[in-house]
Amino acid sequence: MAGPRGEYRKSAQRREQILDAAFVVFSRSGYTAGSVSEIARQVGISQTSVMHHFAGGKLALLRGVLERRDATAEGLLQGLEGRDFLGALVEISRRQTGQRGVVQLYRILSTEATDPEHPAHAYFRERSHRIADAVTVAFAQAKAAGQLREGVDPRAAALSTLSMTEGLEMMWLYGHDVDMADDIRVFIDSFLTDPLEPAAGRSAIALGD
Amino acid sequence: MAGPRGEYRKSAQRREQILDAAFVVFSRSGYTAGSVSEIARQVGISQTSVMHHFAGGKLALLRGVLERRDATAEGLLQGLEGRDFLGALVEISRRQTGQRGVVQLYRILSTEATDPEHPAHAYFRERSHRIADAVTVAFAQAKAAGQLREGVDPRAAALSTLSMTEGLEMMWLYGHDVDMADDIRVFIDSFLTDPLEPAAGRSAIALGD
Repeated sequence: MAGPRGEYRKSAQRREQILDAAFVVFSRSGYTAGSVSEIARQVGISQTSVMHHFAGGKLALLRGVLERRDATAEGLLQGLEGRDFLGALVEISRRQTGQRGVVQLYRILSTEATDPEHPAHAYFRERSHRIADAVTVAFAQAKAAGQLREGVDPRAAALSTLSMTEGLEMMWLYGHDVDMADDIRVFIDSFLTDPLEPAAGRSAIALGD
Repeated sequence: MAGPRGEYRKSAQRREQILDAAFVVFSRSGYTAGSVSEIARQVGISQTSVMHHFAGGKLALLRGVLERRDATAEGLLQGLEGRDFLGALVEISRRQTGQRGVVQLYRILSTEATDPEHPAHAYFRERSHRIADAVTVAFAQAKAAGQLREGVDPRAAALSTLSMTEGLEMMWLYGHDVDMADDIRVFIDSFLTDPLEPAAGRSAIALGD
């Protein structure tokens, strides 16, 4: 018989199954058109069971999907500062080239939510500003270490780096000849006195896969 | 009594009304969730009447909305080459700062359609590549005229200019401190031997409003 810890594990597994299904449904239909009932059907459980695990409904499911994705990125950035943080952004882009579905889903959801009346607008807006602040801090640390070219403003560098990252994702999804990782590395290099090291950085981090 | 020409005018007006409604509905619900019946209701006509004007249904309505928007941009680019074409791209971005709804709609629809199975995928993909080709030609013309910095590749410059444009739109929609027009001008300037002229270009073209 499953004790309390067995129950907990079972519940955690069920949450993961639901998030997998939510990922598939949101990828296919977007957030507005995706439905909790379709997610429940995919898992083979009732809508009530889904709500038992995600009391906040569709928005809670969206957060769950995105937080799972963000956790991977945050793991890569953990404890990094300045140039190292900027190098890890390149690595995050590199990993995304193998995850078209994730990139597509994130682009679709975050774009739908540009509408101020969209239920996830505040969530995405807050997330976007949080990331911009973190990247600004990294550029400021690089500046303090004398690693930025003269006249580069950390905030402006951060905002344009993020613009370029988002735009490259769109161009990549439409089949243009861009390399999300190398192109963002070259772009970040344009702010730095010494370039990030593509080959070493790539293989060193990729070993952790 | 309305003769054939009166009938034609009436029909053209009705098409415009339908496209206005399609714009509103797609802006609010996106393409997938937006419905022809809702568009018909907005105009106060039947769904059959909408289909009479747009036999291709929802996809034809989407094309109609986007082509109306593209016609304005194409008018600005008409007959321009090289640097002048690139300067007009800046002007197009400047005009968009007054049209949040248009930017938002275009971003939402083009992002939904990144899914290869989306009915408008081929349309957006073809459009995106057509624009990339036109911007590449403009950079190549600038290069031939000796106006590009050494080592700048027209194709790479075009793809990164378009990435930056798309990304800046997203950042702007999320309330970041970016200036879509000035930021893209500075970005294009980074490829040019002589900068585009912001103030003169702005007032000269803006007079045509």
